Amino acid sequence: MPDCHFEAILPSWLKEFFAEHSEALLSDSERMKFAIELARQNVINGTGGPFGAAVFERSSGNLVAVGVNLVVQSNCSHAHAEMLALAIAEHRLSSYTLNQPGFPGYELVSSSEPCAMCFGAIIWSGVTRLVCGASTIDAKHAGFDEGAKPEKWIAELENRGIEVATGICRNKACAVLQLYLDNGGVVYNGRAR
Amino acid sequence: MPDCHFEAILPSWLKEFFAEHSEALLSDSERMKFAIELARQNVINGTGGPFGAAVFERSSGNLVAVGVNLVVQSNCSHAHAEMLALAIAEHRLSSYTLNQPGFPGYELVSSSEPCAMCFGAIIWSGVTRLVCGASTIDAKHAGFDEGAKPEKWIAELENRGIEVATGICRNKACAVLQLYLDNGGVVYNGRAR
Repeated sequence: MPDCHFEAILPSWLKEFFAEHSEALLSDSERMKFAIELARQNVINGTGGPFGAAVFERSSGNLVAVGVNLVVQSNCSHAHAEMLALAIAEHRLSSYTLNQPGFPGYELVSSSEPCAMCFGAIIWSGVTRLVCGASTIDAKHAGFDEGAKPEKWIAELENRGIEVATGICRNKACAVLQLYLDNGGVVYNGRAR
Repeated sequence: MPDCHFEAILPSWLKEFFAEHSEALLSDSERMKFAIELARQNVINGTGGPFGAAVFERSSGNLVAVGVNLVVQSNCSHAHAEMLALAIAEHRLSSYTLNQPGFPGYELVSSSEPCAMCFGAIIWSGVTRLVCGASTIDAKHAGFDEGAKPEKWIAELENRGIEVATGICRNKACAVLQLYLDNGGVVYNGRAR
């Protein structure tokens, strides 16, 4: 009988990380630095690709969930930082959408602009805002294929009621992409290399 | 400390289902009927949305993994049938891509054409063929938003070396979408209803 189970577990270094990052983060810049630090720790600890993401309550800045890229380490091509952060947020709130009536409103903060898959996942998640660091071009420049997003992907999100802010702490985000390459990290794109 | 864990478990009725469907399936039609039956069983058993998918070895027709839609039941907006089938296949083969050198070549057979998220996930998965039943228009007609795929999504997949066959057993696939609606199933689209 084939397997009937799928599981992803975030790295154990997060325990210490959370202990040092427990305060509410109020600005885009603070939240983005947090997401970028997740990406950086993921590289430094050798636990995955140079991408980090977090779901915050928009108004309070309280952290709901985080994700880091675990594609290679967990043998799962869709274990992108955004996917894990969104799935864990929904699990924590016991809802398949973060846009339930009575919910305070949530945003996804990601160290890079989304790939084609995460673009779609953001729509289904019910977040009402997306905040991005490195651009699609930055990720491509580092060797990461982002897939084929609709040409006007930001407008597509905005048309569905999802605000988009791009280029937040972009240089810091790009520095983590470079760190990953400098460390000889695997650049995976649907084919083994 | 936020959760660090994400898990999806396929429904228990699959055990009996597999016992009755153990032979290799050689044609598109046979494989599609299998995927559609997964979708139908998911509706009948009340375990999720009207979508089923399976990963097969292309040449032998051996089954590698299956998925059914578990969005509402597992509180996970990205627990689409395709996502689970691909993740479980990669897990089973201990590879983040199904396109490793030496692998025999795999295809995803899905009871409906992919949404925007699954479109991206298919690219990353390393399958070299996609076989679809109901069309994007059929899914929309049933009330399911498919998100914003690139206008020429089939060409985008083909340009990346992924063959695409559409409309296989389309009427049977559409009948399961209708069955779900007739049974009062939840149509979810990123917002609670």
